[in-house]
Amino acid sequence: MNESMTLESACGASDGESPRGKSVVTAKVGEEVSPKVTARLAERISRLAASPIRDILKVANRADVVSFAGGLPDGESFPDLSLETISQQALQYGPTEGEEQLRDWIAEDLTKRGLSVAADCVLILSGSQQGIDLVAKMFVSDKTKVAVESPTYLAALQVFNLFGADYTSFCPQSSDKLVDGSPALTYCIPTFQNPTSYCYTKAERQRLASACDASGSVLLEDDPYRDLVYDQCDRQPVCSYLKRSEWIYQSSFSKTLAPGLRLGYLVCSPSLYPTLSWLKQAADLHSNRLSQQLVLSLLQGTDYEARLGKLIVRYRKKRDHFEALLQEHFSDIASWTVPAGGLFFWLKLHSARAIDTRELLQEAIARGVAFMPGEPFFSVPRDAASHIRLNFSNASAQQSSTGVKILADLFRSH
Amino acid sequence: MNESMTLESACGASDGESPRGKSVVTAKVGEEVSPKVTARLAERISRLAASPIRDILKVANRADVVSFAGGLPDGESFPDLSLETISQQALQYGPTEGEEQLRDWIAEDLTKRGLSVAADCVLILSGSQQGIDLVAKMFVSDKTKVAVESPTYLAALQVFNLFGADYTSFCPQSSDKLVDGSPALTYCIPTFQNPTSYCYTKAERQRLASACDASGSVLLEDDPYRDLVYDQCDRQPVCSYLKRSEWIYQSSFSKTLAPGLRLGYLVCSPSLYPTLSWLKQAADLHSNRLSQQLVLSLLQGTDYEARLGKLIVRYRKKRDHFEALLQEHFSDIASWTVPAGGLFFWLKLHSARAIDTRELLQEAIARGVAFMPGEPFFSVPRDAASHIRLNFSNASAQQSSTGVKILADLFRSH
Repeated sequence: MNESMTLESACGASDGESPRGKSVVTAKVGEEVSPKVTARLAERISRLAASPIRDILKVANRADVVSFAGGLPDGESFPDLSLETISQQALQYGPTEGEEQLRDWIAEDLTKRGLSVAADCVLILSGSQQGIDLVAKMFVSDKTKVAVESPTYLAALQVFNLFGADYTSFCPQSSDKLVDGSPALTYCIPTFQNPTSYCYTKAERQRLASACDASGSVLLEDDPYRDLVYDQCDRQPVCSYLKRSEWIYQSSFSKTLAPGLRLGYLVCSPSLYPTLSWLKQAADLHSNRLSQQLVLSLLQGTDYEARLGKLIVRYRKKRDHFEALLQEHFSDIASWTVPAGGLFFWLKLHSARAIDTRELLQEAIARGVAFMPGEPFFSVPRDAASHIRLNFSNASAQQSSTGVKILADLFRSH
Repeated sequence: MNESMTLESACGASDGESPRGKSVVTAKVGEEVSPKVTARLAERISRLAASPIRDILKVANRADVVSFAGGLPDGESFPDLSLETISQQALQYGPTEGEEQLRDWIAEDLTKRGLSVAADCVLILSGSQQGIDLVAKMFVSDKTKVAVESPTYLAALQVFNLFGADYTSFCPQSSDKLVDGSPALTYCIPTFQNPTSYCYTKAERQRLASACDASGSVLLEDDPYRDLVYDQCDRQPVCSYLKRSEWIYQSSFSKTLAPGLRLGYLVCSPSLYPTLSWLKQAADLHSNRLSQQLVLSLLQGTDYEARLGKLIVRYRKKRDHFEALLQEHFSDIASWTVPAGGLFFWLKLHSARAIDTRELLQEAIARGVAFMPGEPFFSVPRDAASHIRLNFSNASAQQSSTGVKILADLFRSH
């Protein structure tokens, strides 16, 4: 789960000129397809809004830009890989469901976390973004009610939009009826939410589970950040509290091992499994077997727990440094909660009138810093969200110091 | 592109007992979801037919069964891999479109094959099955006309079905109007077709291109077998002959390098690229970077051409051996054309009345041999197709000798 890729536009899709000087693609999503092809597009494509952010942010990957925009882990945290334990047979086609030993490991791990599942209900994914696609295919079509937090993970909204979702939003802290209107699907990120980094309390977890049970809504719990915990908080899966409703729980190895391996997984109620595995097969047959073997050997290594411990120390230090920078430069112009885990600070900008943070992005990049505007995280589009999301895991301490000051100056002048 | 995975059922999905003796999932695709969840499923899920073949064939992977069913390459043909050239940065999130150098290589390679494309139009896929999913999302919704060969690749039919395709079929050798009724999409496998292994002549390629140009149909050309060529034949992409229609061409590294790396790609008309790359991003952000780096280093190696040459020699020998076995055991009960490339023999069984080959599969497996029944390859379901598909690349010479004789005895007795 990560929208870092919104940093990249379709290669050549918005450049006037490609880096290689070849003729390039110039159309935007669904916009410049020739009229005769437009008439043939599936209707769902009309729901793909061309994102100006995608086009602007692609320059955020330039070496001369400090980027707080994506959700990239610290590149220095990646593990050493070895092919020594990889069998030649791992290069053959494999089972759609994934490697058996990896599924066993995941089932045992989740059971320790309070979610009792059999390995038979584990489906290995090509990253947890894929889980959102499969679940949306299964449950979302034109006008399907989907309950989401607002703000929430923008690339989940994009997938639900594609399939035609009609949103209803909920707030875990609300004491009102949590999930209104009997949504077919409820999507949540209860642990170090993206973008807010909020971590549900135990009571909030139980209440959301009860609300799903009461409404019969299927729960999709997205949990990629759970291991990046800097301050103690309840992290037991909401799915473990369900008594009746069907559910899907998913997580990822992108944050704790490495995103380039593109490996995640879902587990689900037994009755949902056959359909989801069928959809997985139709999507890409099965996930990369080399990655599965490499991840398995890292998980089974004697130093995996120690590795997680070091990662937490590394990121806690980065968070604390970033917090100090924000205190120094942003305390008069924004408010925020220190994240107890995850990768992001979510800032609310103080302002007499609402700010469309997208409008400041281009200038920020011109000054050498990228951030993620808040607007696209809201399920009901907002013209001016007055929020920005800042990633603290990827930039170095020096880059962060420079970048936060530049950003604060920009927002203050605005 | 491969339906080998139909050999695997959802783990535990049809077993009474799992290998680990745990309680298991027992529902079939869309069948045993609880009634309250059924009411919430997207309508498209009703088009997922539970496949009895999938359930039966999963036993085909048992060590004591000779399988001609899947499209598995010879495991002894897989390359040696080395992580020496892989940078740590390859483990970070990467661009949706794929690694730049790999895209460059592919564009140059396709240009040599007669399809002139810029690297900007190359989209790296997590296997070419994914291309079918992305293109179907873009063009296929309820009752969309899709032109296909019949028979054709069954997992393409499954994806098109999911999104609601209404089929019209065409035959490349037909002199009639090729593509009827102005389909939104035309799907073809012109080179060593699956399942027939037929290779279009140059005239047939040009005629299909003209038909798409005339009807305005978007062409999806699926070309995973092109390099496995045993007898000379025209292999220039049909897309290269198009004058007006938009197009997508896709291929795979699964057959020439290794399927477990899950790497394929598509190239397309410039105007389709932004939407397809957006859909790729929504599906899984980007493809495995380790695989991309490994494949690139194999492609750039000095021995890649030699490797392809050896692979062709290996498979031609296997084909010839299989052909001799068929001549010995099947010549009185079936007819077939010797494939000039690819991985399959497609047999038409002689019989006074049509045979539902699915009915014989269970008995074949009981006798220790698996084959692929012909029925699921037809776009309009047939009760009795009297065809079977036999893969010759995976089984050893000894296994093939045993298996072909057993199969012939079974079909003869029937």
